[in-house]
Amino acid sequence: MDFSSKYLEKAVLEISGLPGIGRKTALRLALHLLRCDENEVEALAGSLMDLKQKVKRCSSCGNLSDRERCEICENPVREQALVCVVEDIRDVMAIENTGQYKGVYQVLGALISPMDGIGPGGLNLQSLLDKVEEGKVQEVIFALSGTMEGETTGFYIYKKLKDKGLKLSSIARGIAVGDQLEYADELTLARSIQHRLPYEQSLQQNRS
Amino acid sequence: MDFSSKYLEKAVLEISGLPGIGRKTALRLALHLLRCDENEVEALAGSLMDLKQKVKRCSSCGNLSDRERCEICENPVREQALVCVVEDIRDVMAIENTGQYKGVYQVLGALISPMDGIGPGGLNLQSLLDKVEEGKVQEVIFALSGTMEGETTGFYIYKKLKDKGLKLSSIARGIAVGDQLEYADELTLARSIQHRLPYEQSLQQNRS
Ligand SMILES: [Zn+2]
Ligand SMILES: [Zn+2]
Repeated sequence: MDFSSKYLEKAVLEISGLPGIGRKTALRLALHLLRCDENEVEALAGSLMDLKQKVKRCSSCGNLSDRERCEICENPVREQALVCVVEDIRDVMAIENTGQYKGVYQVLGALISPMDGIGPGGLNLQSLLDKVEEGKVQEVIFALSGTMEGETTGFYIYKKLKDKGLKLSSIARGIAVGDQLEYADELTLARSIQHRLPYEQSLQQNRS
Repeated sequence: MDFSSKYLEKAVLEISGLPGIGRKTALRLALHLLRCDENEVEALAGSLMDLKQKVKRCSSCGNLSDRERCEICENPVREQALVCVVEDIRDVMAIENTGQYKGVYQVLGALISPMDGIGPGGLNLQSLLDKVEEGKVQEVIFALSGTMEGETTGFYIYKKLKDKGLKLSSIARGIAVGDQLEYADELTLARSIQHRLPYEQSLQQNRS
Protein backbone atom coordinates (compact mmCIF):
# COMPACT_ATOMS: atom_id res chain seq x y z
CA MET A 1 0.00 0.00 0.00
CA ASP A 2 1.23 3.45 -0.89
CA PHE A 3 -0.22 6.20 1.28
CA SER A 4 -0.83 9.78 0.24
CA SER A 5 -0.31 10.93 3.84
CA LYS A 6 2.53 10.00 6.18
CA TYR A 7 0.26 10.52 9.18
CA LEU A 8 -2.30 8.14 7.72
CA GLU A 9 0.47 5.64 7.03
CA LYS A 10 1.73 5.91 10.63
CA ALA A 11 -1.76 5.48 12.09
CA VAL A 12 -2.46 2.43 9.90
CA LEU A 13 0.88 0.93 10.92
CA GLU A 14 0.13 1.46 14.61
CA ILE A 15 -3.43 0.13 14.39
CA SER A 16 -2.40 -2.93 12.40
CA GLY A 17 0.13 -3.69 15.15
CA LEU A 18 -2.82 -4.69 17.33
CA PRO A 19 -3.48 -8.46 17.48
CA GLY A 20 -6.01 -9.73 14.95
CA ILE A 21 -6.15 -6.47 12.98
CA GLY A 22 -4.83 -6.56 9.42
CA ARG A 23 -3.83 -3.66 7.17
CA LYS A 24 -7.22 -3.39 5.42
CA THR A 25 -9.09 -3.28 8.73
CA ALA A 26 -6.58 -0.75 10.10
CA LEU A 27 -7.11 1.47 7.07
CA ARG A 28 -10.87 1.17 7.41
CA LEU A 29 -10.63 2.19 11.09
CA ALA A 30 -8.29 5.10 10.28
CA LEU A 31 -10.68 6.40 7.61
CA HIS A 32 -13.52 6.09 10.12
CA LEU A 33 -11.57 8.18 12.65
CA LEU A 34 -10.91 10.82 9.99
CA ARG A 35 -14.67 11.19 9.61
CA CYS A 36 -15.25 11.45 13.38
CA ASP A 37 -15.22 14.69 15.36
CA GLU A 38 -11.88 15.60 16.88
CA ASN A 39 -13.25 15.27 20.42
CA GLU A 40 -14.34 11.70 19.69
CA VAL A 41 -10.83 10.79 18.57
CA GLU A 42 -9.45 12.60 21.61
CA ALA A 43 -11.74 10.55 23.88
CA LEU A 44 -10.50 7.32 22.30
CA ALA A 45 -6.81 8.28 22.45
CA GLY A 46 -7.21 9.56 26.04
CA SER A 47 -8.93 6.40 27.18
CA LEU A 48 -6.03 4.31 25.85
CA MET A 49 -3.51 6.40 27.79
CA ASP A 50 -5.65 6.28 30.96
CA LEU A 51 -5.94 2.52 30.57
CA LYS A 52 -2.17 2.17 30.49
CA GLN A 53 -1.34 4.75 33.15
CA LYS A 54 -4.11 4.27 35.71
CA VAL A 55 -5.15 0.61 35.74
CA LYS A 56 -3.28 -1.47 38.33
CA ARG A 57 -3.28 -5.09 39.40
CA CYS A 58 -4.92 -5.83 42.76
CA SER A 59 -2.15 -6.60 45.24
CA SER A 60 -4.25 -9.35 46.78
CA CYS A 61 -5.57 -11.30 43.78
CA GLY A 62 -4.08 -9.87 40.57
CA ASN A 63 -7.42 -8.68 39.17
CA LEU A 64 -7.35 -5.38 37.29
CA SER A 65 -8.34 -2.50 39.52
CA ASP A 66 -8.18 1.28 39.78
CA ARG A 67 -7.15 0.95 43.44
CA GLU A 68 -4.55 -1.03 45.36
CA ARG A 69 -7.07 -3.79 46.13
CA CYS A 70 -9.95 -4.65 43.82
CA GLU A 71 -13.66 -4.33 44.64
CA ILE A 72 -14.05 -8.08 45.05
CA CYS A 73 -11.22 -8.42 47.60
CA GLU A 74 -12.48 -5.30 49.42
CA ASN A 75 -16.07 -6.56 49.59
CA PRO A 76 -16.77 -7.73 53.19
CA VAL A 77 -19.52 -10.06 51.98
CA ARG A 78 -17.16 -12.16 49.86
CA GLU A 79 -15.66 -15.26 51.50
CA GLN A 80 -11.93 -14.65 51.63
CA ALA A 81 -11.27 -18.30 52.54
CA LEU A 82 -12.69 -19.52 49.21
CA VAL A 83 -10.34 -18.78 46.33
CA CYS A 84 -11.06 -19.48 42.67
CA VAL A 85 -7.93 -19.75 40.54
CA VAL A 86 -8.37 -18.36 37.01
CA GLU A 87 -6.07 -17.39 34.19
CA ASP A 88 -7.41 -14.03 33.21
CA ILE A 89 -9.60 -11.07 34.12
CA ARG A 90 -12.01 -12.28 31.40
CA ASP A 91 -12.58 -15.44 33.42
CA VAL A 92 -13.34 -13.32 36.49
CA MET A 93 -15.88 -11.38 34.46
CA ALA A 94 -17.43 -14.56 33.09
CA ILE A 95 -17.80 -16.10 36.57
CA GLU A 96 -19.03 -12.82 38.11
CA ASN A 97 -21.69 -12.65 35.40
CA THR A 98 -23.15 -15.94 36.64
CA GLY A 99 -23.89 -14.25 40.01
CA GLN A 100 -23.29 -17.64 41.68
CA TYR A 101 -19.86 -17.29 43.18
CA LYS A 102 -19.28 -15.66 46.57
CA GLY A 103 -15.57 -16.23 47.14
CA VAL A 104 -12.55 -14.33 45.86
CA TYR A 105 -10.13 -15.00 43.01
CA GLN A 106 -6.52 -15.60 42.23
CA VAL A 107 -5.84 -14.22 38.74
CA LEU A 108 -2.71 -15.94 37.44
CA GLY A 109 -2.33 -13.59 34.46
CA ALA A 110 -0.94 -16.46 32.38
CA LEU A 111 -0.77 -20.24 32.06
CA ILE A 112 2.39 -22.32 32.03
CA SER A 113 3.29 -22.65 28.38
CA PRO A 114 6.80 -23.83 27.47
CA MET A 115 6.00 -23.03 23.81
CA ASP A 116 5.53 -19.35 24.73
CA GLY A 117 8.43 -19.38 27.20
CA ILE A 118 6.11 -19.04 30.21
CA GLY A 119 7.22 -21.07 33.22
CA PRO A 120 5.79 -21.28 36.76
CA GLY A 121 7.58 -18.01 37.56
CA GLY A 122 5.31 -16.25 35.08
CA LEU A 123 2.23 -16.95 37.20
CA ASN A 124 0.82 -14.46 39.72
CA LEU A 125 0.70 -17.11 42.42
CA GLN A 126 2.75 -15.89 45.39
CA SER A 127 -0.04 -13.90 47.05
CA LEU A 128 -2.17 -17.08 47.14
CA LEU A 129 0.68 -19.15 48.60
CA ASP A 130 1.21 -16.45 51.22
CA LYS A 131 -2.49 -16.48 52.19
CA VAL A 132 -2.37 -20.28 52.45
CA GLU A 133 0.68 -20.12 54.74
CA GLU A 134 -1.13 -17.55 56.87
CA GLY A 135 -4.06 -19.97 57.27
CA LYS A 136 -6.49 -17.62 55.52
CA VAL A 137 -7.65 -20.13 52.89
CA GLN A 138 -9.95 -23.12 53.30
CA GLU A 139 -10.82 -24.08 49.74
CA VAL A 140 -9.21 -23.51 46.36
CA ILE A 141 -11.30 -24.00 43.22
CA PHE A 142 -9.42 -24.54 39.99
CA ALA A 143 -11.26 -22.83 37.12
CA LEU A 144 -8.70 -23.04 34.36
CA SER A 145 -9.33 -23.69 30.68
CA GLY A 146 -9.52 -27.33 29.65
CA THR A 147 -6.44 -26.98 27.46
CA MET A 148 -3.07 -28.62 27.96
CA GLU A 149 -1.69 -25.35 29.38
CA GLY A 150 -4.64 -25.10 31.77
CA GLU A 151 -4.12 -28.69 32.99
CA THR A 152 -0.36 -28.28 33.36
CA THR A 153 -0.83 -25.08 35.35
CA GLY A 154 -3.56 -26.60 37.54
CA PHE A 155 -1.42 -29.62 38.30
CA TYR A 156 1.58 -27.44 39.15
CA ILE A 157 -0.48 -25.44 41.67
CA TYR A 158 -2.18 -28.61 42.96
CA LYS A 159 1.21 -30.07 43.87
CA LYS A 160 2.07 -26.89 45.81
CA LEU A 161 -1.20 -27.01 47.76
CA LYS A 162 -2.09 -30.66 48.20
CA ASP A 163 -0.39 -31.13 51.58
CA LYS A 164 -1.66 -27.90 53.13
CA GLY A 165 -4.91 -29.33 54.51
CA LEU A 166 -7.10 -27.42 52.08
CA LYS A 167 -10.15 -28.55 50.18
CA LEU A 168 -9.08 -28.51 46.54
CA SER A 169 -11.75 -28.64 43.87
CA SER A 170 -12.07 -28.18 40.16
CA ILE A 171 -15.03 -26.72 38.32
CA ALA A 172 -17.20 -29.48 36.87
CA ARG A 173 -16.22 -30.16 33.32
CA GLY A 174 -19.43 -29.23 31.68
CA ILE A 175 -16.93 -27.20 29.78
CA ALA A 176 -15.51 -29.42 27.06
CA VAL A 177 -11.86 -30.38 27.19
CA GLY A 178 -10.01 -27.99 24.88
CA ASP A 179 -12.56 -25.21 25.28
CA GLN A 180 -11.67 -21.80 26.59
CA LEU A 181 -13.44 -20.77 29.74
CA GLU A 182 -14.35 -17.27 28.62
CA TYR A 183 -16.50 -18.58 25.76
CA ALA A 184 -18.64 -20.82 27.96
CA ASP A 185 -22.25 -19.73 28.41
CA GLU A 186 -23.27 -18.42 31.82
CA LEU A 187 -25.49 -21.34 32.77
CA THR A 188 -22.83 -23.95 32.00
CA LEU A 189 -20.28 -21.96 33.91
CA ALA A 190 -22.56 -21.38 36.92
CA ARG A 191 -23.38 -25.11 37.08
CA SER A 192 -19.80 -26.19 36.72
CA ILE A 193 -18.91 -24.06 39.75
CA GLN A 194 -21.84 -25.37 41.80
CA HIS A 195 -20.96 -28.98 40.94
CA ARG A 196 -17.26 -28.62 41.44
CA LEU A 197 -15.27 -31.78 42.12
CA PRO A 198 -12.39 -32.58 44.39
CA TYR A 199 -9.34 -31.82 42.29
CA GLU A 200 -8.01 -35.42 42.35
CA GLN A 201 -11.29 -36.66 40.93
CA SER A 202 -11.15 -34.18 38.07
CA LEU A 203 -7.72 -35.54 37.15
CA GLN A 204 -9.09 -39.10 36.96
CA GLN A 205 -12.03 -37.89 34.93
CA ASN A 206 -9.93 -36.16 32.35
CA ARG A 207 -7.50 -39.02 32.01
CA SER A 208 -9.95 -41.94 31.95
CA MET B 1 -20.01 -7.16 31.35
CA ASP B 2 -19.05 -5.87 34.75
CA PHE B 3 -15.60 -4.32 34.88
CA SER B 4 -13.31 -4.20 37.88
CA SER B 5 -11.78 -0.96 36.60
CA LYS B 6 -13.60 2.15 35.38
CA TYR B 7 -10.66 3.01 33.12
CA LEU B 8 -10.80 -0.42 31.55
CA GLU B 9 -14.54 -0.05 31.09
CA LYS B 10 -14.10 3.36 29.44
CA ALA B 11 -11.40 2.07 27.09
CA VAL B 12 -13.50 -0.96 26.09
CA LEU B 13 -16.49 1.33 25.48
CA GLU B 14 -14.41 3.64 23.28
CA ILE B 15 -12.77 0.82 21.32
CA SER B 16 -16.06 -1.01 20.78
CA GLY B 17 -17.45 2.24 19.31
CA LEU B 18 -15.26 1.60 16.27
CA PRO B 19 -17.05 0.00 13.32
CA GLY B 20 -16.86 -3.80 13.17
CA ILE B 21 -15.38 -4.14 16.68
CA GLY B 22 -17.55 -5.85 19.27
CA ARG B 23 -17.19 -5.84 23.06
CA LYS B 24 -15.18 -9.07 23.26
CA THR B 25 -12.70 -7.87 20.65
CA ALA B 26 -12.48 -4.48 22.38
CA LEU B 27 -11.72 -6.18 25.68
CA ARG B 28 -9.09 -8.38 24.04
CA LEU B 29 -7.44 -5.27 22.54
CA ALA B 30 -7.58 -3.39 25.86
CA LEU B 31 -5.94 -6.31 27.68
CA HIS B 32 -3.29 -6.42 24.96
CA LEU B 33 -2.56 -2.70 25.47
CA LEU B 34 -2.26 -3.26 29.21
CA ARG B 35 0.54 -5.75 28.50
CA CYS B 36 2.33 -3.34 26.12
CA ASP B 37 4.98 -0.84 27.17
CA GLU B 38 3.66 2.63 27.92
CA ASN B 39 5.58 4.16 25.00
CA GLU B 40 3.90 1.73 22.60
CA VAL B 41 0.46 2.82 23.80
CA GLU B 42 1.61 6.44 23.60
CA ALA B 43 2.70 5.91 19.99
CA LEU B 44 -0.70 4.47 19.11
CA ALA B 45 -2.68 7.21 20.89
CA GLY B 46 -0.44 9.91 19.41
CA SER B 47 -0.80 8.56 15.89
CA LEU B 48 -4.60 8.70 16.22
CA MET B 49 -4.45 12.36 17.29
CA ASP B 50 -1.98 13.22 14.49
CA LEU B 51 -4.25 11.47 12.03
CA LYS B 52 -7.17 13.63 13.05
CA GLN B 53 -5.29 16.91 13.47
CA LYS B 54 -2.79 16.83 10.60
CA VAL B 55 -4.32 14.95 7.68
CA LYS B 56 -6.12 17.23 5.22
CA ARG B 57 -8.08 16.74 2.02
CA CYS B 58 -6.31 17.85 -1.16
CA SER B 59 -8.00 21.06 -2.31
CA SER B 60 -7.74 19.94 -5.92
CA CYS B 61 -8.96 16.32 -5.82
CA GLY B 62 -10.13 15.45 -2.30
CA ASN B 63 -7.44 12.81 -1.75
CA LEU B 64 -6.00 12.64 1.76
CA SER B 65 -2.79 14.60 2.04
CA ASP B 66 -0.44 16.17 4.59
CA ARG B 67 -0.24 19.30 2.39
CA GLU B 68 -2.73 21.58 0.69
CA ARG B 69 -2.45 19.64 -2.58
CA CYS B 70 -1.65 15.93 -2.70
CA GLU B 71 1.45 14.34 -4.25
CA ILE B 72 -0.50 13.12 -7.28
CA CYS B 73 -1.95 16.55 -8.13
CA GLU B 74 1.48 18.14 -7.55
CA ASN B 75 3.32 15.62 -9.75
CA PRO B 76 4.20 17.36 -13.09
CA VAL B 77 4.32 14.00 -14.90
CA ARG B 78 0.65 13.22 -14.21
CA GLU B 79 -1.88 14.26 -16.90
CA GLN B 80 -4.10 16.86 -15.28
CA ALA B 81 -6.59 16.67 -18.17
CA LEU B 82 -7.38 13.01 -17.41
CA VAL B 83 -9.48 12.64 -14.27
CA CYS B 84 -10.54 9.36 -12.71
CA VAL B 85 -13.62 9.67 -10.49
CA VAL B 86 -13.51 7.37 -7.44
CA GLU B 87 -15.43 7.10 -4.21
CA ASP B 88 -12.67 6.73 -1.71
CA ILE B 89 -8.96 7.04 -0.97
CA ARG B 90 -8.85 3.22 -0.91
CA ASP B 91 -9.80 3.22 -4.59
CA VAL B 92 -6.97 5.68 -5.30
CA MET B 93 -4.57 3.34 -3.52
CA ALA B 94 -5.88 0.31 -5.42
CA ILE B 95 -5.50 2.04 -8.81
CA GLU B 96 -2.09 3.51 -7.91
CA ASN B 97 -0.92 0.01 -7.00
CA THR B 98 -1.55 -1.13 -10.58
CA GLY B 99 1.08 1.40 -11.75
CA GLN B 100 -0.94 1.80 -14.98
CA TYR B 101 -2.72 5.09 -14.52
CA LYS B 102 -1.07 8.41 -15.33
CA GLY B 103 -3.90 10.88 -14.79
CA VAL B 104 -5.25 12.49 -11.64
CA TYR B 105 -8.29 11.69 -9.48
CA GLN B 106 -11.49 13.15 -8.17
CA VAL B 107 -12.19 11.56 -4.79
CA LEU B 108 -15.91 11.95 -4.09
CA GLY B 109 -15.62 10.85 -0.46
CA ALA B 110 -19.07 9.24 -0.65
CA LEU B 111 -21.66 7.82 -3.04
CA ILE B 112 -25.22 9.02 -3.39
CA SER B 113 -27.20 6.84 -1.00
CA PRO B 114 -30.71 7.93 -0.05
CA MET B 115 -30.78 5.11 2.53
CA ASP B 116 -27.84 6.73 4.35
CA GLY B 117 -29.15 10.25 3.79
CA ILE B 118 -26.36 11.12 1.34
CA GLY B 119 -27.50 13.23 -1.59
CA PRO B 120 -25.53 14.82 -4.47
CA GLY B 121 -24.50 17.62 -2.06
CA GLY B 122 -22.52 15.07 -0.06
CA LEU B 123 -20.13 14.45 -2.95
CA ASN B 124 -16.78 16.24 -3.28
CA LEU B 125 -17.53 17.20 -6.87
CA GLN B 126 -17.28 20.98 -7.18
CA SER B 127 -13.52 21.12 -7.78
CA LEU B 128 -13.99 18.80 -10.78
CA LEU B 129 -16.87 20.88 -12.17
CA ASP B 130 -14.71 24.01 -11.77
CA LYS B 131 -11.82 22.41 -13.66
CA VAL B 132 -14.21 21.35 -16.43
CA GLU B 133 -15.57 24.91 -16.72
CA GLU B 134 -12.00 26.23 -16.89
CA GLY B 135 -11.30 23.86 -19.82
CA LYS B 136 -8.66 21.94 -17.92
CA VAL B 137 -10.20 18.50 -18.41
CA GLN B 138 -10.33 16.36 -21.56
CA GLU B 139 -11.41 12.98 -20.29
CA VAL B 140 -13.24 11.74 -17.21
CA ILE B 141 -13.04 8.05 -16.31
CA PHE B 142 -15.73 6.72 -13.99
CA ALA B 143 -14.23 4.13 -11.62
CA LEU B 144 -17.06 3.64 -9.17
CA SER B 145 -18.15 0.43 -7.53
CA GLY B 146 -20.62 -1.69 -9.49
CA THR B 147 -23.27 -1.25 -6.82
CA MET B 148 -26.56 0.61 -7.12
CA GLU B 149 -25.05 3.57 -5.25
CA GLY B 150 -22.03 3.56 -7.60
CA GLU B 151 -24.28 3.54 -10.66
CA THR B 152 -26.59 6.24 -9.32
CA THR B 153 -23.64 8.48 -8.52
CA GLY B 154 -21.97 7.85 -11.87
CA PHE B 155 -25.16 8.66 -13.72
CA TYR B 156 -25.66 11.86 -11.72
CA ILE B 157 -22.15 13.09 -12.62
CA TYR B 158 -22.51 11.88 -16.20
CA LYS B 159 -25.56 14.09 -16.64
CA LYS B 160 -23.59 17.10 -15.36
CA LEU B 161 -20.73 16.45 -17.79
CA LYS B 162 -22.26 14.94 -20.93
CA ASP B 163 -22.70 18.23 -22.82
CA LYS B 164 -19.30 19.69 -21.94
CA GLY B 165 -17.45 18.19 -24.92
CA LEU B 166 -15.44 15.76 -22.81
CA LYS B 167 -14.56 12.16 -23.44
CA LEU B 168 -16.44 10.22 -20.77
CA SER B 169 -15.44 6.64 -20.10
CA SER B 170 -16.07 3.95 -17.57
CA ILE B 171 -13.60 1.33 -16.39
CA ALA B 172 -14.23 -1.96 -18.17
CA ARG B 173 -16.45 -4.13 -16.05
CA GLY B 174 -14.04 -6.95 -15.52
CA ILE B 175 -15.16 -6.10 -12.03
CA ALA B 176 -18.40 -7.94 -11.39
CA VAL B 177 -21.56 -5.94 -10.90
CA GLY B 178 -22.11 -5.62 -7.17
CA ASP B 179 -18.42 -5.94 -6.31
CA GLN B 180 -16.53 -3.26 -4.46
CA LEU B 181 -13.64 -1.76 -6.31
CA GLU B 182 -11.14 -1.93 -3.48
CA TYR B 183 -11.32 -5.73 -3.33
CA ALA B 184 -10.52 -6.22 -7.01
CA ASP B 185 -7.13 -7.74 -7.77
CA GLU B 186 -4.51 -5.48 -9.35
CA LEU B 187 -4.48 -7.17 -12.75
CA THR B 188 -8.25 -6.98 -13.17
CA LEU B 189 -8.22 -3.38 -12.09
CA ALA B 190 -5.30 -2.42 -14.38
CA ARG B 191 -7.01 -4.08 -17.37
CA SER B 192 -10.36 -2.52 -16.65
CA ILE B 193 -8.70 0.92 -16.79
CA GLN B 194 -6.80 0.14 -20.00
CA HIS B 195 -9.97 -1.17 -21.70
CA ARG B 196 -12.24 1.56 -20.49
CA LEU B 197 -15.43 2.15 -22.42
CA PRO B 198 -17.31 5.28 -23.43
CA TYR B 199 -19.65 5.91 -20.52
CA GLU B 200 -22.84 5.50 -22.62
CA GLN B 201 -21.70 2.05 -23.72
CA SER B 202 -21.15 0.96 -20.12
CA LEU B 203 -24.71 1.93 -19.33
CA GLN B 204 -26.03 -0.28 -22.14
CA GLN B 205 -23.80 -3.12 -21.07
CA ASN B 206 -25.00 -3.09 -17.47
CA ARG B 207 -28.63 -2.83 -18.47
CA SER B 208 -28.69 -5.40 -21.27
ZN1 LIG C 1 -8.44 -8.40 44.31
ZN1 LIG D 1 -4.95 15.92 -5.12
